[in-house]
Amino acid sequence: MSAVTTLGITLGDPAGIGPEIVAATLAKLPDEWIRRVIVYGDRGPLERGARAMGVTLPEVMMASPGTGERAIAGAPDETTGAAQIGYLETAVADAAAGRIGAIVTAPISKTWAKRAGFAFPGHTEMLADRLGARDVVMMFAGPTMKVALATIHVPLADVPRTLTTFGVRRTIELVTESLLHDFGIAAPRIGVVGLNPHAGEGGLIGREDRDIIAPACTTCRTATVEGPLVPDAAFRMSYDAFVAMYHDQGLIPVKLVDFDESVNMTLGLPIVRTSPDHGTAYDIAGKGVARAISMQRAVELAVAVLGRR
Amino acid sequence: MSAVTTLGITLGDPAGIGPEIVAATLAKLPDEWIRRVIVYGDRGPLERGARAMGVTLPEVMMASPGTGERAIAGAPDETTGAAQIGYLETAVADAAAGRIGAIVTAPISKTWAKRAGFAFPGHTEMLADRLGARDVVMMFAGPTMKVALATIHVPLADVPRTLTTFGVRRTIELVTESLLHDFGIAAPRIGVVGLNPHAGEGGLIGREDRDIIAPACTTCRTATVEGPLVPDAAFRMSYDAFVAMYHDQGLIPVKLVDFDESVNMTLGLPIVRTSPDHGTAYDIAGKGVARAISMQRAVELAVAVLGRR
Repeated sequence: MSAVTTLGITLGDPAGIGPEIVAATLAKLPDEWIRRVIVYGDRGPLERGARAMGVTLPEVMMASPGTGERAIAGAPDETTGAAQIGYLETAVADAAAGRIGAIVTAPISKTWAKRAGFAFPGHTEMLADRLGARDVVMMFAGPTMKVALATIHVPLADVPRTLTTFGVRRTIELVTESLLHDFGIAAPRIGVVGLNPHAGEGGLIGREDRDIIAPACTTCRTATVEGPLVPDAAFRMSYDAFVAMYHDQGLIPVKLVDFDESVNMTLGLPIVRTSPDHGTAYDIAGKGVARAISMQRAVELAVAVLGRR
Repeated sequence: MSAVTTLGITLGDPAGIGPEIVAATLAKLPDEWIRRVIVYGDRGPLERGARAMGVTLPEVMMASPGTGERAIAGAPDETTGAAQIGYLETAVADAAAGRIGAIVTAPISKTWAKRAGFAFPGHTEMLADRLGARDVVMMFAGPTMKVALATIHVPLADVPRTLTTFGVRRTIELVTESLLHDFGIAAPRIGVVGLNPHAGEGGLIGREDRDIIAPACTTCRTATVEGPLVPDAAFRMSYDAFVAMYHDQGLIPVKLVDFDESVNMTLGLPIVRTSPDHGTAYDIAGKGVARAISMQRAVELAVAVLGRR
């Protein structure tokens, strides 16, 4: 077993649904994959998650600091907020050291992460920083569509001034590389979504579409790039991937058509990284009703991409 | 036949698909409705539209200035740009005079409208001005969902500073009235969508959700109002109507799930106004391939609402 084919799974906030969806996913994993997994998180919450979901945990390697052992499902606090970050830091250190080639992350609470001193808006930005990736892109991959984001956790008011031609171009490049190498698509077609209503209607409704986005939409040797597309029509068209300009422009359609089967994937990192596309869901944590399908798909995708890279 | 049960249909840009979708719609209308219709537009393009679509035009009342007679499908110019506005102005004058109780508008080109001296971003704003309505709301009604917009043709950069608690509240009120009286829903439930990613995540990602939108989401005697909802999850939930904060937040989901069956409806006018949810589609104009379903639904909805008001 080569180091790079080992997959880390972080438990996320032990007070959220992370332990349940990780337990349910592990229970369904084929043996040859289980042998390649390290779970970063504490055994207590994972076992409670398995009981809640009515599944039997397979034997799996764990890296358990013990900090989240006393977590109560649905009741996050400073301790669970710190524990979720501890799991992640350990996994990232192992990735940086070449011990794991992929990380699948269960949801953390951004609010409790911040209170625990976490300096990033989310997993993606933290992984980029720790693993020395200058440009990363968040892409959601579902059975129906793939959507990458040109901006991520940015207040809507700041989106227009955050967009640059260089940034949009770089996003398109990372998406192209991923479609080619991670998904094995030979001549990908990418649809770049506009920013303003009607993609600015020729400059009548905002200038960003014409001045910032259009110059980035150049077809290159390896991919066909079309845009800026009229946003409210774009997602009815067929592309190997879309590049959306902001969080909800991309997530509203992918969550609507691919429901809970879409997977969050970070492009541009030296390792593979995927995660389910939902949050900690404290309101249902511990009840055994969480749907593990997105977590399962996240692990399946990570395994598939690890195999292709 | 009372004046207020008469329905005006404007032909839109005679160089667009307007003549085709109006002709196809008229051809399918029951006789008792045809007798209540006035078409504002020229006979030449309408007859060419009917031929392109392979339908027989019924006898229908027309108000035809003759300005768009020489329009060529797919080739808009100053003349067709002015003609489309002429049709609209005549219809609106008849509405203001109490001769028609509803207007269904085929698509105009905003670019050519502007060149023809049209001072409004679209139909909606013009109708509000001419008919003396202080507050109007654009709502899209499809078989699956209804979505009203708190802001309309606003560059994305201007959306956050355009939103006010009063404006969002007023939008909710007009939607409530419409659900009650136009759609006959006794105790409507309205979902108000947030502005920022994760609805601001408690103020971490923008403050508008907490400071501007939340205070507007108060349940009143006649309706249940919930929000601000997390935008990327909201449209998977079930409400009688959503209030979206900006154009594409509302139109991306409704066009994705209700495809070409959604109808644009203007709330707050003294008359009923509906229209199809698409544009002039010059690229397919005259080819007989335009889908008339949204125009048909727009006329059906206008007739239904006229009957209820």
